[in-house]
Amino acid sequence: MRTRPLKVALLGCGVVGSEVARIMTTHADDLTARIGAPVELAGVAVRRPDRVREGIAPELITTDATALVKRGDIDVVVEVIGGIEPARTLITTAFEYGASVVSANKALLAQDGAALHAAAEEHDEDLYYEAAVAGAIPLIRPLRESLAGDKINRVMGIVNGTTNFILDKMDSTGAGYQEALDEATALGYAEADPTADVEGFDAAAKAAILAGIAFHTRVRLDDVYREGMTEVTAADFASAKEMGCTIKLLAICERAADGGSVTARVHPAMIPLSHPLASVRGAYNAVFVESDAAGQLMFYGPGAGGSPTASAVLGDLVAVCRNRLSGSTGPGESAYAALPVSPMGDVVTRYHISLDVADKPGVLAQVATVFAEHGVSIDTVRQQGKDGEASLVVVTHRASDAALTGTVEALRKLDTVRGVASIMRVEGE
Amino acid sequence: MRTRPLKVALLGCGVVGSEVARIMTTHADDLTARIGAPVELAGVAVRRPDRVREGIAPELITTDATALVKRGDIDVVVEVIGGIEPARTLITTAFEYGASVVSANKALLAQDGAALHAAAEEHDEDLYYEAAVAGAIPLIRPLRESLAGDKINRVMGIVNGTTNFILDKMDSTGAGYQEALDEATALGYAEADPTADVEGFDAAAKAAILAGIAFHTRVRLDDVYREGMTEVTAADFASAKEMGCTIKLLAICERAADGGSVTARVHPAMIPLSHPLASVRGAYNAVFVESDAAGQLMFYGPGAGGSPTASAVLGDLVAVCRNRLSGSTGPGESAYAALPVSPMGDVVTRYHISLDVADKPGVLAQVATVFAEHGVSIDTVRQQGKDGEASLVVVTHRASDAALTGTVEALRKLDTVRGVASIMRVEGE
Repeated sequence: MRTRPLKVALLGCGVVGSEVARIMTTHADDLTARIGAPVELAGVAVRRPDRVREGIAPELITTDATALVKRGDIDVVVEVIGGIEPARTLITTAFEYGASVVSANKALLAQDGAALHAAAEEHDEDLYYEAAVAGAIPLIRPLRESLAGDKINRVMGIVNGTTNFILDKMDSTGAGYQEALDEATALGYAEADPTADVEGFDAAAKAAILAGIAFHTRVRLDDVYREGMTEVTAADFASAKEMGCTIKLLAICERAADGGSVTARVHPAMIPLSHPLASVRGAYNAVFVESDAAGQLMFYGPGAGGSPTASAVLGDLVAVCRNRLSGSTGPGESAYAALPVSPMGDVVTRYHISLDVADKPGVLAQVATVFAEHGVSIDTVRQQGKDGEASLVVVTHRASDAALTGTVEALRKLDTVRGVASIMRVEGE
Repeated sequence: MRTRPLKVALLGCGVVGSEVARIMTTHADDLTARIGAPVELAGVAVRRPDRVREGIAPELITTDATALVKRGDIDVVVEVIGGIEPARTLITTAFEYGASVVSANKALLAQDGAALHAAAEEHDEDLYYEAAVAGAIPLIRPLRESLAGDKINRVMGIVNGTTNFILDKMDSTGAGYQEALDEATALGYAEADPTADVEGFDAAAKAAILAGIAFHTRVRLDDVYREGMTEVTAADFASAKEMGCTIKLLAICERAADGGSVTARVHPAMIPLSHPLASVRGAYNAVFVESDAAGQLMFYGPGAGGSPTASAVLGDLVAVCRNRLSGSTGPGESAYAALPVSPMGDVVTRYHISLDVADKPGVLAQVATVFAEHGVSIDTVRQQGKDGEASLVVVTHRASDAALTGTVEALRKLDTVRGVASIMRVEGE
């Protein structure tokens, strides 16, 4: 066994970074055995150097992340700062100075993954980022490596713990969105500004990364259709229950039936209670993968938090250190399939539509005609009348999003349709 | 990209082997892109050469597996024969002749894993075997690699599809064991001789492999406590339901609370319906992993079948080929922790015990005294009387298996205890 240690530069020492440093210290012997050489924390770049950082020697602390990365003796840079800059420049600098990189930065990977992979490849360095999607759940490695001999057709997952906590709370208690969000905030599951979570930005970044890996195709953040979950109501949950469903915010990456294109999207959807994703509770994440040969797989675990994310970072660190010792690199970006990414209008799925209509004869016939004219086939209709008003719940067969959008626009123009109360996709059947 | 193909020798061409050959042919371009070089099927060793094998050139077929392995130009040997011999000799011969090995052979790995790993290491070759445990579910790689920076404390899984199908059927229909087994046999889920599955031998082999990887310790098949599920009754399921539980055949590998030893066991157990493993239906497998940093993870998917197993084999094949091209090998056996494996008597868990007792005053006091004398603390007791006979259902707090065994022996000696109807462990709480 080699005795000269591998040197690690840690960029960021917040919830995740401090846990990475802690495990590197407390599990040092273990890591040495697994890697085949000792690893040493060579420096920790922080913004606030005055803060007490238990277990980290004060002389390792620096505010100059760039100088740390440029030292020239660093083997692996662990980037847990988050955000686009300075993380992006620090990572490319790391490659230039001969270091591999482990990152937990989903926003950066989703936005600039292709450029970062290219930089890693140019300098023959590794770029690993298991922690960027679904926290501790080993997901990127299985997709990139275990299923490497298989053909993935769909990746459908709950990849945001905050919104799953809120939706689970609404489902189990009948609470409205705001009430459930308030509880999530009080318990620390939601940030003061929950926009990134509840509007689906966080999930969309993860969907872009997952789609890219699953389909060997570059999928940019802009390619991902995104709809948040702030308009999901207690009434929607009641409707879902009647259908034997619950509602989850899903990231769905699909290969088209003809195999020639892919789509990626994030939106709330009804899924049957019998689907394995339906029973994912609280802030847990889970990703359901369908492939030609392996069939249906699911990966489940905590999607966030300091320790789980640190576990994923450490797993990557071990792999990168092992690669380094053997003078090789792991699998880089794989975008050879280069499939076109289709717009949302091409997505085919089922829909659950609630309409407020006038309670008089002929309304159902009018509504049904609009669906038929747009080529959207109706599976079931349920009509409930009260005080001259009625509600009509339509569940469709599979139809394209474009056809459904056209249908809804036409429905809104009908005199007898007072309003479209909700439109929700139905997945996982 | 290198153009000289990597040569693969396929040993065995049954359900799994033929599917491996098929995917290698139909996904050739894909595999080339993922590996960085083409892979070529160089030979297929079979027992019955006369059988028609669609898609495999007849000149590749041979009955002389040894000669194929000894050709000297083989890069990777894929062993899907199963059983101990000739698989073991063929694998060690492959290493001697400069080939790496991908195997799906759980029985061989469980029995001779240490020797095979040593042979691989001696010749600087890879030995991969993702398909040996839980079919297509990426499990060995996440445990060996993704969680490499973490400390695993428990692995608890449903690793045999046949028995899960039977137990699920008993649970959902109220059928008895024999009736459910007959249906499993008729549907092809159980073999004509189901012993290896229903007596837990298959699950025990997988438990040995999983425990070894999870705890970096050699765990032999003999170290695994094994109890089949042939004595689980409809009455047991009724009792489980009353406790909000179901019954699964579980493989459980645990690190002792003090961290100084490990245990591995296979037996039926009650688990709460709220546990993620409780909702694993039909012939699916799932493995629940608890670690220090990552927390609770679950891996779910099909545990058997030609395509799923072939998917796992192909994933390994890609990894081994990539290693070969870069002149490196993946992580070998990791047994550095070398923890002692404790006997079943040391395992601590809860128990559900049904006793047939005389329906007269003082019986409960007598029974309770026996539990107390053996240091087993009672959580709940439920007594039901009918016609001079009564049944007593005792659920204990956590106690060692040795203490429980002593308790049961003493209970059997009581005049007032007519019989011990069932003893079942309660896990996952």
